[in-house]
Amino acid sequence: PSTSSDRITATLFPGDGIGPEIAESVKQVFTAADVPIEWEEHFVGTEVDPRTQSFVTWESLESVRRNKVGLKGPMATPIGKGHRSLNLTLRKELNLYANVRPCYSLPGYKTRYDNVNLVTIRENTEGEYSGLEHQVVRGVVESLKIITRQASLRVAEYAFYYAKTHGRQRVSAVHKANIMQKTDGLFLKCCREVADKYPEIKYEEVVIDNCCMMLVKNPTLFDVLVMPNLYGDIISDLCAGLIGGLGLTPSLNIGEGGIALAEAVHGSAPDIAGKVSINTTSSSNKRPKCVRIYLLLIFTKGMFNAEPL
Amino acid sequence: PSTSSDRITATLFPGDGIGPEIAESVKQVFTAADVPIEWEEHFVGTEVDPRTQSFVTWESLESVRRNKVGLKGPMATPIGKGHRSLNLTLRKELNLYANVRPCYSLPGYKTRYDNVNLVTIRENTEGEYSGLEHQVVRGVVESLKIITRQASLRVAEYAFYYAKTHGRQRVSAVHKANIMQKTDGLFLKCCREVADKYPEIKYEEVVIDNCCMMLVKNPTLFDVLVMPNLYGDIISDLCAGLIGGLGLTPSLNIGEGGIALAEAVHGSAPDIAGKVSINTTSSSNKRPKCVRIYLLLIFTKGMFNAEPL
Ligand SMILES: CC(C)[C@H](C(=O)O)[C@@H](O)C(=O)O
Ligand SMILES: CC(C)[C@H](C(=O)O)[C@@H](O)C(=O)O
Repeated sequence: PSTSSDRITATLFPGDGIGPEIAESVKQVFTAADVPIEWEEHFVGTEVDPRTQSFVTWESLESVRRNKVGLKGPMATPIGKGHRSLNLTLRKELNLYANVRPCYSLPGYKTRYDNVNLVTIRENTEGEYSGLEHQVVRGVVESLKIITRQASLRVAEYAFYYAKTHGRQRVSAVHKANIMQKTDGLFLKCCREVADKYPEIKYEEVVIDNCCMMLVKNPTLFDVLVMPNLYGDIISDLCAGLIGGLGLTPSLNIGEGGIALAEAVHGSAPDIAGKVSINTTSSSNKRPKCVRIYLLLIFTKGMFNAEPL
Repeated sequence: PSTSSDRITATLFPGDGIGPEIAESVKQVFTAADVPIEWEEHFVGTEVDPRTQSFVTWESLESVRRNKVGLKGPMATPIGKGHRSLNLTLRKELNLYANVRPCYSLPGYKTRYDNVNLVTIRENTEGEYSGLEHQVVRGVVESLKIITRQASLRVAEYAFYYAKTHGRQRVSAVHKANIMQKTDGLFLKCCREVADKYPEIKYEEVVIDNCCMMLVKNPTLFDVLVMPNLYGDIISDLCAGLIGGLGLTPSLNIGEGGIALAEAVHGSAPDIAGKVSINTTSSSNKRPKCVRIYLLLIFTKGMFNAEPL
């Protein structure tokens, strides 16, 4: 983090919908906790910046590159509007190669599952999110999933490093290599190479469909899960569901050069924007009552060590 | 079904591992229930048939084409051996375009979820299962997801037809069109076209990650789910997990020309092959004790109307 007289400067993207309200609360919490932090706020613009091809401006990206740390609220993805998703733009431009989502059962928040304690680590830059789609002939479209050795090794390295530095015992690579032998096969090959360097961490492989079945039957079977982009998207949401929902899940995007961008993973919820009041004491399951205090804690803790609560 | 003096002839693939034992039990159940059925058994061979490029022989395929109905046990997929998966061969060669998996909470089988009652309908021939993978340059591999208007319309038609004929209220199309705008976008477009022809069935769209989160939070939110191949693979296993596992899930593959191939969706479990005894009365949760009686019921009922129990 870039400091001036011991103060951290961090980029803040309030985001859309309920984002600005959350950002406001986040700032209050940091102030109350006396964290020596300076916020550089950047807003999602109203015009497409030609340098980023999206509503995320070049200046916003530069701010994260300079500060190395940032917080981001939900950003609405325009469906089918022909310009790039804001989330994707951030991930690509800042090379946020690993997305880390710790998933713990929260005391006082009752769900069908107890003692969930796992972490999903998702490759965040390629795979099914390549953006390469073509119409081959009328009525036939294709999309390209790209798996590279470089990105696979990089995320696998991060997963094992994370496991080691967080006292985790086991890394499971999630794949569908029985069908996608070359792409997911390469991903597994890279995971195995990295696993060999960490003999103290147990390594196993699990097919994605089976993984989902096991997760809903007994999530305590898993520890750290590492996987290609789309599988990570799916499984991290499934896991969030086990502990109560997206409002309870912190998310940290790790980029090259030491960048860490924490984010809210829930949507922008335009339907409730401006309508909910913060209730920091209730432990009821009702969404508007307690979701945001958790968000605050998550935001706060997520930023410094990706370990919420 | 092809009949001779009122008897049905059906193809039976016992499959691998525990498959032959299950097939034996299935035959006993049909006999005990006095079903006028003749079995044409076909075994997974030991040599690759050049006409199918797999261990599934041409004669096996001809048998299903002739009889129109079949039952199939688990078939082990050789990982990375360079020849096509047996399951995929059957789906492709017989054009089994829709895979139907009804998912109900079973009385007496306790899980975390009550009153699950939904059906997944999966496009079964294309998508991420195209088998088209290339190494672009060293360390960079790609795989092609293919979505066609023809296959999307066909499976959507089947989903709405199924909903209508089974007293279902709602069809949800599962997608990731916010990222794969062209491929999943085409799939959605086809679903919408078909939905317009069924004004009495409610139609909605749900993003796959959100769908998985909702399923683990509250599966009763869903009725009929229709989706591209890989999403169907993942979600049908997730749903099986909600009701207790793959041993409890029937599966029917619908092909063109009225072919229906029922299948066991659990694996071939070579570790327990030959070691379990059938216990048709126990309602314990222990796997070897009751899994197979359910299998029998599922096989039996699945064959005639895709409605187990
Ligand atoms: C909003 C969407 C583009 C995004 C994704 O698919 O990655 C979201 O689901 C997530 O997981 O961060
Ligand atoms: C065994 C495997 C090839 C198969 C698939 O991926 O379709 C299985 O998971 C299924 O769902 O029938």
